[in-house]
Amino acid sequence: MSHTKTHAGLNGSGPAQKLGTVKLFDTTLRDGTQGEGISLTVDDKLKVAQALDDLGMHYIEGGWPGSNPKDELFFSRARKELKLKHAKLVAFSSTRRKNKTAATDDIIKRLLAANTPAVCVFGKSWDSHVIHALRATLDENLEIISDTVGHLKSKGREVIYDAEHFFDGYRANREYALSTIRAAADAGADNITLCDTNGGCLPDDIATIVRDVRAALPGMPLGIHVHNDSNCAVANSLTAVKEGITLVQGTLNGHGERCGNANLASIIANLKLKMNINCVTDEQLQFLTEASRYVDELANVVPADNMPYVGNSAFAHKGGVHVSAVERSASYEHISPALVGNKRRILISELSGKASVTTKAAELNLDFSKDSAAVDKILNLVKQKENKGFQYEGAEGSFVLLVEEALGKRPAFFELQGFRVTVEKDKKDKMVSEATLKIKVGDAVKHTVAEGDGPVDALDKALRNALDKFYPKLKEMSLMDFKVRVINAQAGTAAKVRVFINSKDSKSEWGTVGVSENVIEASWQALVDAVEYKLLNLERGRKKHVH
Amino acid sequence: MSHTKTHAGLNGSGPAQKLGTVKLFDTTLRDGTQGEGISLTVDDKLKVAQALDDLGMHYIEGGWPGSNPKDELFFSRARKELKLKHAKLVAFSSTRRKNKTAATDDIIKRLLAANTPAVCVFGKSWDSHVIHALRATLDENLEIISDTVGHLKSKGREVIYDAEHFFDGYRANREYALSTIRAAADAGADNITLCDTNGGCLPDDIATIVRDVRAALPGMPLGIHVHNDSNCAVANSLTAVKEGITLVQGTLNGHGERCGNANLASIIANLKLKMNINCVTDEQLQFLTEASRYVDELANVVPADNMPYVGNSAFAHKGGVHVSAVERSASYEHISPALVGNKRRILISELSGKASVTTKAAELNLDFSKDSAAVDKILNLVKQKENKGFQYEGAEGSFVLLVEEALGKRPAFFELQGFRVTVEKDKKDKMVSEATLKIKVGDAVKHTVAEGDGPVDALDKALRNALDKFYPKLKEMSLMDFKVRVINAQAGTAAKVRVFINSKDSKSEWGTVGVSENVIEASWQALVDAVEYKLLNLERGRKKHVH
Repeated sequence: MSHTKTHAGLNGSGPAQKLGTVKLFDTTLRDGTQGEGISLTVDDKLKVAQALDDLGMHYIEGGWPGSNPKDELFFSRARKELKLKHAKLVAFSSTRRKNKTAATDDIIKRLLAANTPAVCVFGKSWDSHVIHALRATLDENLEIISDTVGHLKSKGREVIYDAEHFFDGYRANREYALSTIRAAADAGADNITLCDTNGGCLPDDIATIVRDVRAALPGMPLGIHVHNDSNCAVANSLTAVKEGITLVQGTLNGHGERCGNANLASIIANLKLKMNINCVTDEQLQFLTEASRYVDELANVVPADNMPYVGNSAFAHKGGVHVSAVERSASYEHISPALVGNKRRILISELSGKASVTTKAAELNLDFSKDSAAVDKILNLVKQKENKGFQYEGAEGSFVLLVEEALGKRPAFFELQGFRVTVEKDKKDKMVSEATLKIKVGDAVKHTVAEGDGPVDALDKALRNALDKFYPKLKEMSLMDFKVRVINAQAGTAAKVRVFINSKDSKSEWGTVGVSENVIEASWQALVDAVEYKLLNLERGRKKHVH
Repeated sequence: MSHTKTHAGLNGSGPAQKLGTVKLFDTTLRDGTQGEGISLTVDDKLKVAQALDDLGMHYIEGGWPGSNPKDELFFSRARKELKLKHAKLVAFSSTRRKNKTAATDDIIKRLLAANTPAVCVFGKSWDSHVIHALRATLDENLEIISDTVGHLKSKGREVIYDAEHFFDGYRANREYALSTIRAAADAGADNITLCDTNGGCLPDDIATIVRDVRAALPGMPLGIHVHNDSNCAVANSLTAVKEGITLVQGTLNGHGERCGNANLASIIANLKLKMNINCVTDEQLQFLTEASRYVDELANVVPADNMPYVGNSAFAHKGGVHVSAVERSASYEHISPALVGNKRRILISELSGKASVTTKAAELNLDFSKDSAAVDKILNLVKQKENKGFQYEGAEGSFVLLVEEALGKRPAFFELQGFRVTVEKDKKDKMVSEATLKIKVGDAVKHTVAEGDGPVDALDKALRNALDKFYPKLKEMSLMDFKVRVINAQAGTAAKVRVFINSKDSKSEWGTVGVSENVIEASWQALVDAVEYKLLNLERGRKKHVH
C-alpha cells in the first residue's frame, strides 16, 4: 500500500492521478533577486508581478519590507497600482528578533505595514543554527516562532511559515526540527513550508522526510521550497507534491542565490502536462514562454536557451537524423511546443544535412526545391561563413540574404564608398562619436555625417540619413536589440566579435549577424543586413503586388 | 522489502549504500556537440578527451565516424595522439541500414575502421518509429539489431547498445520494446542503455520501467541515457542508478540538443558525495570544476554561473543574512566547495550589508575595520556605481580601486588629456583602426599613436606606448579576456554596454569593468582600471618592501 502510493503520480503516461490541488507561490521578486547579476527596479517588480498574476500564480512574494526601503516602496506602490486578478500579494520577513516581542519589533511592524493579505515568515529549524547564528536557546527559538506567528494571525493575516534549513535540521535533530514547526502550527500558521535552504537534498531525502512530517502533523497544509544545488530542485519539488504537499515555492526561470531556486516554469509545465494537476489553466500555460522571457528581459538577464519548456532551444532541432525525422512527423518532442507558448525551430549548422536547409527554407517561404544544386551552393556558403565565426541560429534575416547571395540573386541596393567613425574624449570626460559615410545608389552619390551615443549609433544614423531619400520606407523599421559576443576571448582585445542585431517593423522581427576582429566592422555588417533584409522584403512585396 | 530497496541510496545523510559500482560514459564529444552554439574542432576534441580521461570517465564517446569526415579524422588522430590512462574510447553509429547487412554496410565498416575498443550503436525501440521513420517491419528491425550487434561482437568489440526512445517505446508497446533489447542482448551486447531521447520522463517513469526491464532481462548490465526536457535529467539518472543501472551516459555541463543531456558534472558529484558511490577518486573529483570550465572554454560557450557544484556562483553569497552567517561559520553550503575544486565567493551588491563589504575586503587583504565610517563610504560609492550599471561581481580589480577611491587613497598614476579613435573602411573592405592619445605623468606629456585589430586594441596599444617609459613593469601584464554585455538592450544601438576585461601577470588574474553608452568609453574605463590595478599592486609591493 505504502509502496504503491510512493510510485503514484509521477508517471507521465499514466491515468489522471488523484493528487489534490497545488498552489503556486512565486518568490522571483524576493528570493529570485538574490541571484548573481539579477537586479530589478521597483517599476520592474510591479511589471513582473502583473505578469505572474496573468500566469496564474496563487501567491506573489514581493519583498522583505523590514530589510530595505526599496521593498517598502514596492508594497506601497503595489497597493495603488497593481490590479491582481487572481494572486495574493505576500510580504516576507524573518521571525521577530530575540530580545523583542512580535508586537514591538520594528521588522514585524514594517511587515504588517506592507498591508498584504498574506505574509511569509521564516524561522530556524536547525538546532546548531539556533545556538550559533541566532545565539538563542532552543526554547527561546520556539517562543520566537510562536509569538511571531500568533501575533500575525491576531492581525488577520494568512501566515505561511518557512521552516529554514528544515531538511538539514531534521537530519541533525529530528525531534527539535519537528518541535519548531509544531510551534508554528499551534500558533495558527496556515501553511508550513519545508525549506531545503542549502539545496543539497536528493529526491529520496525529500520523500522520506516529508512523509514523516505529514505523519507528525496530520492535516497540516505543507509547502516545499528548495534550491538547486544538487541539480534536483524540480524533481525534489515534484516528489514533495507526490508526497502530499500542496504549495510549491519557486522562482520563474529558477533565478536565485548560488544555483538558483526551483524553477517554476518547469514545475508548472510538469505538474500540468505530466502529472495532470490543474495548477493553471490551459490559457495561462500558453503564456509560460512569454512570461519567462519577459522576466529575463526586465531583469536584464540573457535567457538560458536550453531551459526546459520555455528556452529558445527547447524545441530546436540540429542534427540531420532528427531533422529528417521531424519532417517525417515522427515525434522527437516530448510535448507540443504550442502548449507552453513555445515553438519548434530548425537550426542551420555545419552538422545539418540538406534536410535542415530545405526545411528552414520552407519555414521562411524561400523557393527552391530539395534536390537542386541550389541546396549545395547554400550549404557551401553556410560552411564558409561558419568557419569565419558566423552563426545563423537567431539571424534569419542574414540567412535569407545568404540564400539570395548563394543563388546569385541578392540585389545591390547601394554600394559603400567608405566610412569613417571617430570617437573622441577630451580632458573633461566629454565623449563625441561621429560617423561620416559615402554611398552610391545607381549613379547618385550621397555623403552624410551624424553624431550618436556611441560609434555604432552614429554609423546607424549616418546610414539612414544616406538611404532616406532613395528608400523612404526604411523609416518603418527600427533596431530593437543589439548583442555583442566575443568569439575567441583568449586573444584579449584582438579577439573576434560577433554582433547580433534584432530589428522590427510593424509586421515582423528579424535578426542579422556580423563577425570581425573589429567591433565597428561587425556592427556594420549586421546593420547592412538589417537594412537590406527590409529592402528585399519591400521589393519582393512590390513584385508580388505587380503580378 | 521492495519498498525499502526503492528508497535506499538517495539519502545524502544516510549510511554508505550497498550500491554497486557505476561506470561513467561521456558523450560530450558526440551528443554534446548537437547543442545549439556548440562546435568543437578536431584539436579541441582531442583536448577535451584528455581532460575527460583525467576526470576519470570510463568511456569517452568521440563521434560518429560513419556520419562525417571530421569524426573519422578525430579517431585516426586519437589513435596516434591521445594517451588515455583510464578511459576507453568509443565510436558511435546507428545500426546497419535496412537493405544491407552489417558486414557490407559502409557505416558499419567506418565504425569498425575507427578501431576503438568499444562501440555504441543505437537502434529503434518504438514501434511507430520503426514503421514510419525506418520504414521497416517490426521483425526487420529486430533482425537489424541482432545482425549489427552480432557482427560487431564477432569483430571483438565491446558493444554498448543504445535503445533509442526506449521509454516512449515501452509506453506505446511494452512487449515490442522489450523484444528489441532482448535481440541486442541475445546477439551478445555487453550493455544495454535505455534512452529517454525526448527527455520527457519524470523520475517515477524511469523507476517503474527500469525495474520492469531488470526483471525481464535478469543479469543484463544496463545503462541510462536521458535528456533534460523536463528539467529532471540528473534526478532521472540517479533514480536509474538506485534501481540497479550500472552505466550512466551524459555530457559535461549538460551540453546537448534542445535542453541538453544529463549533466555529468552534477551526476558525478551527487554519486560520489551524496550516494557514496566511488565512481571517481577524491583527486579526480577535485578536478571537476576545472574540467567543466575547460570544456566550455574550448566549446566557446559562456559557462553557466549557476551550474550546481562547478558554477562560478555555486558557492557565492550575496544576501546580508547569509553572508553574516557564513562569517559565523554556520554552514550555508551543502558541501565544501574544495571537494569539487570550486571556491566560496562573497558578492558585493546593493543587497549586501556591511558584512559583505568587510568580508570581501578581508578576502582581498584590504585594511579597514568593520565599524569604521570607511565601510559606509564604500557602500555608498558601490550603490552609486551600481545605479549607473556597474557590477563588481567578477571585477575585483575595479572593486579594489573603488575602495581606494572611496577612502581618498587612489593614486593618480597618469592624467588623460584626451584620445581620438578612428575606424575607417574604404571601398575595398579594408579596415584601419587608429588611436591617438595624450597623457600627462607628473609634468611630462606623452602623445602616442597606434593601429590595432579594432578600436579597443588600438587604444590599448596607444595607452601602453604612452605609459611604457614611466612604468616599464606594465610589460608583465597582458589581457586575457574581453566581454561585452549590452545592459538595456531594448534601446538598440543607443543602449548602455558593460565591458569586462580580465588581465593577468605571472602571479595573479584580475577583472575590471567599464560602463557607458559608448563601447569605446566603456572599454577605456576597464582598460584604465586593469592597468591601474597592476600599478597599485606594484606600488603597494614596493612600499611593503621598503618597510
